[in-house]
Amino acid sequence: MQLVDRKFSKLGAEYAPGQEARQNTDELVVSSKVYSGIPVDFSHGDVDAFEPIPGSLEFFNKGVHIGGKQAYTEYRGSKEIREELATKLSNFIGSEINAVDNLIITPGTQGALFLAMGSTISRGDKVAIVEPDYFANRKLVEFFEGEIVPIQLDFFESDEKAGLNLSQLEEAFKAGVKLFLFSNPNNPTGVVYSEEEIFKIANLAEEYEATLIVDELYSRQIFDNRTYTHLYAQKIVSSENLITIMGPSKTESLSGYRLGVAFGSTKIIDRMEKLQAIVSLRAAGYSQSVLKSWFSEPEGWMEDRISKHQLIRDDLIAKLQAADGFKVRATEAGSYLFPEIPELKISIHEFVKALRVQAGVTVTPGTEFGPQYVNNFRINFSQDHQAAVAAMERIIQVVEEYRK
Amino acid sequence: MQLVDRKFSKLGAEYAPGQEARQNTDELVVSSKVYSGIPVDFSHGDVDAFEPIPGSLEFFNKGVHIGGKQAYTEYRGSKEIREELATKLSNFIGSEINAVDNLIITPGTQGALFLAMGSTISRGDKVAIVEPDYFANRKLVEFFEGEIVPIQLDFFESDEKAGLNLSQLEEAFKAGVKLFLFSNPNNPTGVVYSEEEIFKIANLAEEYEATLIVDELYSRQIFDNRTYTHLYAQKIVSSENLITIMGPSKTESLSGYRLGVAFGSTKIIDRMEKLQAIVSLRAAGYSQSVLKSWFSEPEGWMEDRISKHQLIRDDLIAKLQAADGFKVRATEAGSYLFPEIPELKISIHEFVKALRVQAGVTVTPGTEFGPQYVNNFRINFSQDHQAAVAAMERIIQVVEEYRK
Repeated sequence: MQLVDRKFSKLGAEYAPGQEARQNTDELVVSSKVYSGIPVDFSHGDVDAFEPIPGSLEFFNKGVHIGGKQAYTEYRGSKEIREELATKLSNFIGSEINAVDNLIITPGTQGALFLAMGSTISRGDKVAIVEPDYFANRKLVEFFEGEIVPIQLDFFESDEKAGLNLSQLEEAFKAGVKLFLFSNPNNPTGVVYSEEEIFKIANLAEEYEATLIVDELYSRQIFDNRTYTHLYAQKIVSSENLITIMGPSKTESLSGYRLGVAFGSTKIIDRMEKLQAIVSLRAAGYSQSVLKSWFSEPEGWMEDRISKHQLIRDDLIAKLQAADGFKVRATEAGSYLFPEIPELKISIHEFVKALRVQAGVTVTPGTEFGPQYVNNFRINFSQDHQAAVAAMERIIQVVEEYRK
Repeated sequence: MQLVDRKFSKLGAEYAPGQEARQNTDELVVSSKVYSGIPVDFSHGDVDAFEPIPGSLEFFNKGVHIGGKQAYTEYRGSKEIREELATKLSNFIGSEINAVDNLIITPGTQGALFLAMGSTISRGDKVAIVEPDYFANRKLVEFFEGEIVPIQLDFFESDEKAGLNLSQLEEAFKAGVKLFLFSNPNNPTGVVYSEEEIFKIANLAEEYEATLIVDELYSRQIFDNRTYTHLYAQKIVSSENLITIMGPSKTESLSGYRLGVAFGSTKIIDRMEKLQAIVSLRAAGYSQSVLKSWFSEPEGWMEDRISKHQLIRDDLIAKLQAADGFKVRATEAGSYLFPEIPELKISIHEFVKALRVQAGVTVTPGTEFGPQYVNNFRINFSQDHQAAVAAMERIIQVVEEYRK
């Protein structure tokens, strides 16, 4: 088999969130039982239930009216917008970011992740990836022909920390891993790394001269006033060995504009721009204007958004805890839940399809986040509150139907 | 040197169009002579001089108001929009395109090119690339660690054809090349491949079972009622071995929305979608709505745009022909000119910088399009007519100053 065939045989998108419409359900043997209710697509947040930042579209329209200067920015993004962003991000994380050399605007956080990975790894490189973690992380390592070294997140172990297996991480660095990528808050579990864990990760990276890429996409939506530790602000890792990724696609519901940012290492940001030049030139010029609304939301808007999500979380957790055989850790930040379900007579992929066909509920199978999660699924509960709770009741009923 | 370092050492963006602001001019020794006039950036079209398709922004706004359905499309793009596009593109090229399996919407034509190349080549593969051709073509082969096999375009040879060295192409296929990528009309020269050339390319590809990627970005802006031959419509190459790329960023001035399309091979389109899933998920959902304005321009709008560009071309050609030592072939389609200049006392990179500093004129050095073009530069003449002509006069004066 040709190399390119081999690469793509590993790169499935069929079970990726949002691609469910392309799944083949022909040969699926499901019961004829129907669980009716308002369909809910838990594979991503519902931007109709939680709308984009007020005024974001107006910023877009202003960008279009600026004309050519806004359409054709530098590949790393408009200088003026980067400067404004650098100030706002510096305030948020509590540490200075230089707009000229250390910040790039990308087409979504996915774009930032792709560029960061493409700029730091190549074939044969060992890359440490958390299990479970965002599904694209593993796919990216495979696309660039790196070697995945899995690091376990024992997220049921304690509520006081995320549960990263730090001795496994140290072993990985000892074995030659030069890049560690992880999301904080963790996707799919919604747990937040403790200050102690972040310190330890940073100290290990510094000791073994490894690069860290930390995906902080959901770091603004923190529940229960929990402490969140920005790795960048700790100044433990050499600044040239750290890239932080963020974006307004989730909590702020701006996904339709495809905007993200990465900040950190001058050298890596420079490479990311070179790569962007051949990948898609730049984040859509007009969309970049929308970043002016980010971190400039109306007073109280973010607090309101967080408290509404916290209430949805509480109701869903209550349902899961009342059901038999489910296990779940409460989301600490972001909008994900990653419940473990009792053993079923059908596979997790069949379950996901049955759920969609019989109950109008779309979830993402746990195996997208790590091969061992055959009894888990992920939901994004940024949805209409009542519809989400009703959909969770149907999930529990479908599990009951197929339970061993 | 690590492999990833080696890859990026080849991937410069400093001289790429639009990146001039990041060039270091400190050590540049230029004369203090100033050529004053309205600054013109010939590195890309001026969307203030030639504005986006009327109504395009309204389509965007409608997309935003559709909400979540438009924000989260399939990775290959909204089904409804693909269906509408497939009909319009089929009409334009004169051959049927299937919206479900054979069409993908991408973040710009650059996005389509990256995904198509990433889906067809991997390290060690021999890829035939035209010289001169779009600068990213060579960079993409290098990024994917392919081996460039250059095919000469003898564009000064005849006005009846583009001038591709077809025996070189056949030799390349014989030597194991499995992919040939070319732009038609050619970027940077603006010449169009003759029907005979297209037939020959297709027949060779079919004979040697090679894949073709043809970049038809500028194929709507044809001058002098010249014949244009769409490779796809000829049905010579197996449909699974052909990808065609187009987009509304140039003639239609929609670059600020980052939109492109690719159509052709089911298998390659499928891979492109899998790759898009980890590169940037999708073309910005709201932007996709803007494709509704494409190929649906007001009556006479396209004809007017073409005739205005033809007039600019004629005036610039007249200036170049009147000047001493320049050589140029008239643009047949698109907005590029690729003049050859007399030998200078300074390098083409120094000339480009001097032109920017002394005369406020930005052009792209010929070496971006092939290493041998040390006496050429490219301009995109989609500019304010008078400003472009005046800028060309300044270019001729600066050449005169530095001439050997």
